[in-house]
Amino acid sequence: MDHLIYADDLAQRARAASRLLATVSSERKNRWLAHAADALERRTPEIVAANERDLAAAHSSLSAANLDRLRLTPERIRAAAKGLRNIVALPDPVGRVLDSNARPNGLQIQKISVPLGVIFFIYESRPNVTIDAAGLCVKSGNAIILRGGKEALASNSILHAILQDSLHAAELPIDAVQLVNTPDRDVVGRLLQLDKYIDLAIPRGGESLIRRVAEEATMPVLKHYMGNCHVYVDRAADLGMAERIIVNAKCQRPGVCNAAESLLVHADIAQAFLPKAASSLIARGVELRGCPATRALVPAAKPATDADYAAEFLDLILAVRVVASLDEAIDHITRFGSQHTETIVTADADAGRRFTAEVDASAVMVNASTRFNDGYEFGLGAEIGISTDKFHARGPCGLQELCTYKYVVYGNGQIRE
Amino acid sequence: MDHLIYADDLAQRARAASRLLATVSSERKNRWLAHAADALERRTPEIVAANERDLAAAHSSLSAANLDRLRLTPERIRAAAKGLRNIVALPDPVGRVLDSNARPNGLQIQKISVPLGVIFFIYESRPNVTIDAAGLCVKSGNAIILRGGKEALASNSILHAILQDSLHAAELPIDAVQLVNTPDRDVVGRLLQLDKYIDLAIPRGGESLIRRVAEEATMPVLKHYMGNCHVYVDRAADLGMAERIIVNAKCQRPGVCNAAESLLVHADIAQAFLPKAASSLIARGVELRGCPATRALVPAAKPATDADYAAEFLDLILAVRVVASLDEAIDHITRFGSQHTETIVTADADAGRRFTAEVDASAVMVNASTRFNDGYEFGLGAEIGISTDKFHARGPCGLQELCTYKYVVYGNGQIRE
Repeated sequence: MDHLIYADDLAQRARAASRLLATVSSERKNRWLAHAADALERRTPEIVAANERDLAAAHSSLSAANLDRLRLTPERIRAAAKGLRNIVALPDPVGRVLDSNARPNGLQIQKISVPLGVIFFIYESRPNVTIDAAGLCVKSGNAIILRGGKEALASNSILHAILQDSLHAAELPIDAVQLVNTPDRDVVGRLLQLDKYIDLAIPRGGESLIRRVAEEATMPVLKHYMGNCHVYVDRAADLGMAERIIVNAKCQRPGVCNAAESLLVHADIAQAFLPKAASSLIARGVELRGCPATRALVPAAKPATDADYAAEFLDLILAVRVVASLDEAIDHITRFGSQHTETIVTADADAGRRFTAEVDASAVMVNASTRFNDGYEFGLGAEIGISTDKFHARGPCGLQELCTYKYVVYGNGQIRE
Repeated sequence: MDHLIYADDLAQRARAASRLLATVSSERKNRWLAHAADALERRTPEIVAANERDLAAAHSSLSAANLDRLRLTPERIRAAAKGLRNIVALPDPVGRVLDSNARPNGLQIQKISVPLGVIFFIYESRPNVTIDAAGLCVKSGNAIILRGGKEALASNSILHAILQDSLHAAELPIDAVQLVNTPDRDVVGRLLQLDKYIDLAIPRGGESLIRRVAEEATMPVLKHYMGNCHVYVDRAADLGMAERIIVNAKCQRPGVCNAAESLLVHADIAQAFLPKAASSLIARGVELRGCPATRALVPAAKPATDADYAAEFLDLILAVRVVASLDEAIDHITRFGSQHTETIVTADADAGRRFTAEVDASAVMVNASTRFNDGYEFGLGAEIGISTDKFHARGPCGLQELCTYKYVVYGNGQIRE
């Protein structure tokens, strides 16, 4: 029962804090962000010491890559502080007039942006995410309950203490940022049932974490599933541009959701494009898996299966298919795509228009790398994730996507006939 | 297994139709709406005959009120046809540019409104809702799967046949509007698992229907729970206006979600306001349940319990409380309200501003009846429901709320550094 009491208490405190936060001035929220940024830099030795305890405890159980993700260096702490200062500069999303309307009966109706309320943020090892997420949630007027990985508990605890000290200094409710301070999974399970107090759950991590949260949660969940992103090289493509784009989309950072996983090539330019593009990709260590037409042009390519066309490799592997037409490319993307990010390379404006109209994805691009589907690159300033849902928010989610709205109606005694 | 095959087939057809609908011109959708409106009027005798079969079969099992809700008269059919013609006049929500942005690297980014895709609409007896819902979904580019009450199956079947004939005539995919033609509940259960094909479920009916759908569905659900709406009469209220507003909010149509269920009265004006307002309400058949201060001024009032303050009566009953301050009114609403519609009556602009800022509800009003929280009254043109959620859409949901967006990005070869 203890975990029930603990979880309910956390959630109720968050709800109470969210009420106060909803009407706080931008200036006060920005003061907190600036104070927290300074405090993180000033207290770097404490943070590094706590992080070293986490690293020592996880030493035998985590891979070298995961230990690196867990590590907080002075540089990384400085970068996180800079992230908070960047959020200061972003416009406050709360109170924006999204729409307004004067009715024939004299009612003045405004649709106003307001915070969602309480966000439950569940994430895996990188402790600097603690800082980003808290900054974005509080700036958008939301209280946040943080639940990081158990390997990062000492690191997250000191970060949380610093953020709360700064909340106190900025005269904001300290329960605006709370941390689940136990690895007990039952606490997470209980919190996911408290839709009465929590407005949104955001799981950030592997697919199994997201699925578990989506199944258990009674509140909405901002999901961040896989990206099986395509680059389609049209017959009217600039082939040099197409090669630069597929190399960038595949190789610049292969382990992320907006990296390309499949290349579609129009048959008319396959011979001119594929052998040369393939050698650029192979030179960067990419394994190619292709259809028979691809393999006829690129003997080094292995045969591709439907599973390859459906895969999110997150690795230097690329599925390749030669298609007879734009229609066949769109059909392939409709069948295998994950509605994340899709690019056409073409100089034909009609082909670009058809592709962007008919392909259903969070971002559809003409002549640009899939890697641009990102909150910073789109000008949102920062992001808390990239939604693969269509409901509420799609694609990169920044401050605005952490808000809902309410209608504010001014009358002078109107009643309904 | 048959119900699985049937449900999967419906959902897949809907998904295929939604792909075609997403890029159809406004003109074609409007042609369908106009054609369907004419066909409904022309085929009124067929509709009435089918409806009479439903009425005869339900005669012994439904109350007189529910039989009336089930009935389709020529007038009601004409009203539904008029509703479709009104949707013709509304702007197409698809393709609107919601935001645009030129990045320093030259990328042109547009946020464009697109349909959600496939909507599963589950509703209780009124068959004219079949027509409204289909009109709103198709105009917003969505395919709809309709599941009406089993008592209305003959009525819905003929309406569905007419809507599909009109889709055919307008050269739109007939699977844009489909009807679940069996009362088998397993079909509903299966459809609620098909988030692969269905983007949103909208249950419209009693709370138990909504809860069941929300629990079973794997896709998002647009929920439409209760309204416990308050009218707060501030000490700076025009008392005549306050009386007209509470009488209207309570009595004009007591059985709907935006009717008032509770009246809060500032202590300073309680003596001047309550006895007179109470006699107006009592004269209209309203039963009052009040706090001790209320009962001291209105001896006819029964004592109110916390359950009364939390209740959605949907009837001529009103809970009344005298409060010492605006803060106490806001606290009461925060504790007992359902975040639906809240009104303050006041001539004090500061009190109005504080109320609209601090009260969390889909609509917060100053000097107007709660009954105005409605898609038509807010100028959305029509509504498919009033959302009590905060996520995606809040309050009245019209064409725009049946859409999501995608980012359309134009570059000239940009790659990410």
